[in-house]
Amino acid sequence: MSDINRQFMLARIPSGPLTQDCFRLERGAIPMPGDGEVLVKARYVSLDAANRAWMQGATYRDAIEAGTVMAGGVLGEVVQSRHGDFAPGDLVSGDCGWQDYAARPGKVLRKVTPTDPLSHLLSIYGITGLTAYFGLIEVGRPKAGETVVVSAAAGAVGNVVGQIAKVLGCRVVGIAGSDDKCRWLTDELGFDEAVNYKSGPLYKTLKAACPGGIDVYFDNVGGDVFETVLFQMNLLGRIACCGAVSAYDGTPPAHGPRGVPGLFVVKRLTVRGFIVSDFFEQRDEALEQLRAWVADGRLKVIEDVISGFEALPEALIGLLNGENRGKRMVKIC
Amino acid sequence: MSDINRQFMLARIPSGPLTQDCFRLERGAIPMPGDGEVLVKARYVSLDAANRAWMQGATYRDAIEAGTVMAGGVLGEVVQSRHGDFAPGDLVSGDCGWQDYAARPGKVLRKVTPTDPLSHLLSIYGITGLTAYFGLIEVGRPKAGETVVVSAAAGAVGNVVGQIAKVLGCRVVGIAGSDDKCRWLTDELGFDEAVNYKSGPLYKTLKAACPGGIDVYFDNVGGDVFETVLFQMNLLGRIACCGAVSAYDGTPPAHGPRGVPGLFVVKRLTVRGFIVSDFFEQRDEALEQLRAWVADGRLKVIEDVISGFEALPEALIGLLNGENRGKRMVKIC
Repeated sequence: MSDINRQFMLARIPSGPLTQDCFRLERGAIPMPGDGEVLVKARYVSLDAANRAWMQGATYRDAIEAGTVMAGGVLGEVVQSRHGDFAPGDLVSGDCGWQDYAARPGKVLRKVTPTDPLSHLLSIYGITGLTAYFGLIEVGRPKAGETVVVSAAAGAVGNVVGQIAKVLGCRVVGIAGSDDKCRWLTDELGFDEAVNYKSGPLYKTLKAACPGGIDVYFDNVGGDVFETVLFQMNLLGRIACCGAVSAYDGTPPAHGPRGVPGLFVVKRLTVRGFIVSDFFEQRDEALEQLRAWVADGRLKVIEDVISGFEALPEALIGLLNGENRGKRMVKIC
Repeated sequence: MSDINRQFMLARIPSGPLTQDCFRLERGAIPMPGDGEVLVKARYVSLDAANRAWMQGATYRDAIEAGTVMAGGVLGEVVQSRHGDFAPGDLVSGDCGWQDYAARPGKVLRKVTPTDPLSHLLSIYGITGLTAYFGLIEVGRPKAGETVVVSAAAGAVGNVVGQIAKVLGCRVVGIAGSDDKCRWLTDELGFDEAVNYKSGPLYKTLKAACPGGIDVYFDNVGGDVFETVLFQMNLLGRIACCGAVSAYDGTPPAHGPRGVPGLFVVKRLTVRGFIVSDFFEQRDEALEQLRAWVADGRLKVIEDVISGFEALPEALIGLLNGENRGKRMVKIC
């Protein structure tokens, strides 16, 4: 065990798009766990669009403050424990931040069962897969034959949403940011159609891809895409609001989408924001279903694993720019 | 039976606030019911903010076209029937429009049981009362002790929403357009607080009235009020979207409320548009409950009845300007 703890500090809160100079690499001593705490060595750090939102203010968690360790989900190994539920060698997940070692209260960590490959615990069997599963099934409530649209469709959550919707017998249309991604969604992941929101007016391309309108929209982006989809929703449609990445990496939009709440009334839509922990009571059942779909090949696990602690800032910046396909994470050791 | 049928035609579609010259009074012959049709003589015409929305385009019904009889809900009496389910003397409700007599297919009419006073069939035991009941209870799902906010609180639906929420043990705050209305809501109808959105910044006055945040918002107005309330919603709050009257009587807003969908996610809100007919299977049960609350004095029935057919245009214009308290209707005969 090395005796140096590398840490990426959030040096300053970005006011526009996130840049490398918002982070500062520091090297310090490995912390000592206090009473009830556990010392965790990071194996993988999860990169999520929400990381950027946390910099802007309190959300479902406190804001990250400048001068503190950058926050982030970690899959790690217990190296020392002063909490009865954990022992050295245990695999745990929790928000340990961007650092090699973190001393964290046992109560904020969750013991996880090793899986081969380990990375699946951050993708399909982690927050990502469960977010897609619960958001689509519990919030979107699609029925076979309905049209499901998902934005950021090539991203970590989006690709899983689309694949599950196909398993459920829906017609699935993805919205993504390049022609390459769109081809990949249809050719490799079985989406019925995919439209590139950066090429041509989305209203028209989406309309062509959804001639019967949209029954369920899984929204990862908010903003103009949300508005465009809203105008094409069918009566009694459902919108699962998972994130609003279009508003995270820059100044928040001056205005919201037109048609709110007028079209909610006229179309009698149910629009619901959620986070995955709202459904954690059903977690085991969901994981069992996901494992079955992966095992029989109906669900492809798409991961984008980058190696090396020092790649963290660029990995997040790239994710916010739409570089990744599937779940992006950084392998620490 | 007079042999003249007075009709208000929608002479032109208004492009801004509704004015008297959008209507034209005509006098013609009483129509003859065709096969399967019923001739209905109007007793009361219901005035609703939605009447104005219908002029702007298709909603949950077709748009009203210029040059046709103005549409509107009517409580009337069958004077002639060529439909097996109806006989002269039956009391019926349906969209018969602004005219003394209408020949309408039996299938679009509903037979109703006379009540004393008859007007209650258009207010508390009609669309108005049922909209308040289902929107609050089935969509808003308030629990005792929660804070419920309702906009257009002195209006037909709003006052009933607030009164029912009080019966259910909630803390109730109304938003209305004058100090007089606000005083009336608290002093006469038992609202805990009421704020005048026209006096001072609503964000501050609402915040003062809802120090613990808002759990359920029953939205009748959309627009800026919707946005202001959204920012004060509590985690896991519910918004029942009943109408967007702020957008009906003029040009639609250029933009929607800020915070959509970002705050839906962060606060994990459920925001749902509905119309009363979505719940008609539960109508009998709802009416029974409403009758019980009226009978034991827990629900006051607030009506604003104007006399005379020719008052119809001014009655609707006044309603859109917020003149009424409770359910506005015009008594025809």
